[in-house]
Amino acid sequence: MPTEKSHAKGSAPPGPVPAGTIRVYSMRFCPFAQRARLVLNAKGIKHEVVNINLMDKPDWFLEKNPLGLVPTLETSAGEVIYESPITCDYLDEVYPGKKLLPPTPLEKAQQKMLLEQFSKIPGYYYRITMGRKKGEDVSGLLSELKENFTKLDAVLTKKKTKFFGGDSITMIDYMMWPWFERLEVFDVKQCVDNAPELKKWTERMLEDPAVKATAHSLENHKIFYKSYAAGTPDYDFDL
Amino acid sequence: MPTEKSHAKGSAPPGPVPAGTIRVYSMRFCPFAQRARLVLNAKGIKHEVVNINLMDKPDWFLEKNPLGLVPTLETSAGEVIYESPITCDYLDEVYPGKKLLPPTPLEKAQQKMLLEQFSKIPGYYYRITMGRKKGEDVSGLLSELKENFTKLDAVLTKKKTKFFGGDSITMIDYMMWPWFERLEVFDVKQCVDNAPELKKWTERMLEDPAVKATAHSLENHKIFYKSYAAGTPDYDFDL
Repeated sequence: MPTEKSHAKGSAPPGPVPAGTIRVYSMRFCPFAQRARLVLNAKGIKHEVVNINLMDKPDWFLEKNPLGLVPTLETSAGEVIYESPITCDYLDEVYPGKKLLPPTPLEKAQQKMLLEQFSKIPGYYYRITMGRKKGEDVSGLLSELKENFTKLDAVLTKKKTKFFGGDSITMIDYMMWPWFERLEVFDVKQCVDNAPELKKWTERMLEDPAVKATAHSLENHKIFYKSYAAGTPDYDFDL
Repeated sequence: MPTEKSHAKGSAPPGPVPAGTIRVYSMRFCPFAQRARLVLNAKGIKHEVVNINLMDKPDWFLEKNPLGLVPTLETSAGEVIYESPITCDYLDEVYPGKKLLPPTPLEKAQQKMLLEQFSKIPGYYYRITMGRKKGEDVSGLLSELKENFTKLDAVLTKKKTKFFGGDSITMIDYMMWPWFERLEVFDVKQCVDNAPELKKWTERMLEDPAVKATAHSLENHKIFYKSYAAGTPDYDFDL
């Protein structure tokens, strides 16, 4: 079992990926990497996690993925896959178990369109954090974020289902979840005040085993977030 | 056969999509819409084109797609699909004929990663055009665009194949093509000077029937581009 401690420049490379398993290069608190970890957990895929120090990336990691992004998957055949939705689709297509992508091309297209709609949201978390750090007025950004959440709420209201793809969790729920786990951490929880269906969805998601398996406590999230916002992320906090 | 002339606000809606066909809302010179038209042509899918005046969109179009984007597909069941890569994947999955997406999850992931890499390029075309219009120095942007093309050239050099997915045209080639048809129109052709494999790929693409079927002459492209750069796009030029 590899250590959870992050690998920085100069660290020893982790060696080849053992047969019958897949490796995910990750960062414990990264919401994008959490997407892949949610799918790995939900499908019960045997995997190992190698955490990367994103401020000081090892050369061997940049050789595998010149973009230096997490999540990055590495197979036992040495194949490398990155960009979080691409890693998740790959895992769902290759591995047996519960299928997370919907079965029809139309439903698949609908989830991808919804993901495009959602993809405006993560940027607000970043800009609100940086704006506050600089002492700027972020009320406009908060309003825009709220508006985006209201649009997602309307999707659920219209669908009348428990989750975004129906009455059970599918891929699109996992793609969005990490930013909901961090609502309070980023101090943007007030932005879902007018989104009652989204709030109910959040409660339902919290019951999911994969969500539980990849979650951090609010306390730990806050400690990491403080170090991140200060520009000195403490990747190995609590290890 | 509907007219090719663009539909503006106040125009009569085109009515339901006939059974056995699919409609694409398009704009004759839009590179993103051309992606869908390439796939429709390559697969021989029976379709009709409804062109939209993007500066003055009809209300009935915005009701179908509130984002007002082209391409937008509409099926005879009234389903609406947008975002160009999503429309293209949908068409490939639903319709028989030549499969454009690769058969394995790994190859699919590799094409999606390459598309992500490519997706930085269209923005340069826009920024270079606007920069020149304002009389700004765009040499930095041109260098960056050149660097992006050089990276694509390296992909082909490494693969040693005629096209980006192998020795025949697949989805990724069509996703990139529209910006290569416009190299001279946007006066950025010099940016592929150091990309010999990419140049050879361009020559090969020009032989493809779907590329030919969706192409405009350089002269017509230039006339439209001039009107676009001036802020008064002439959607119905030459009709």
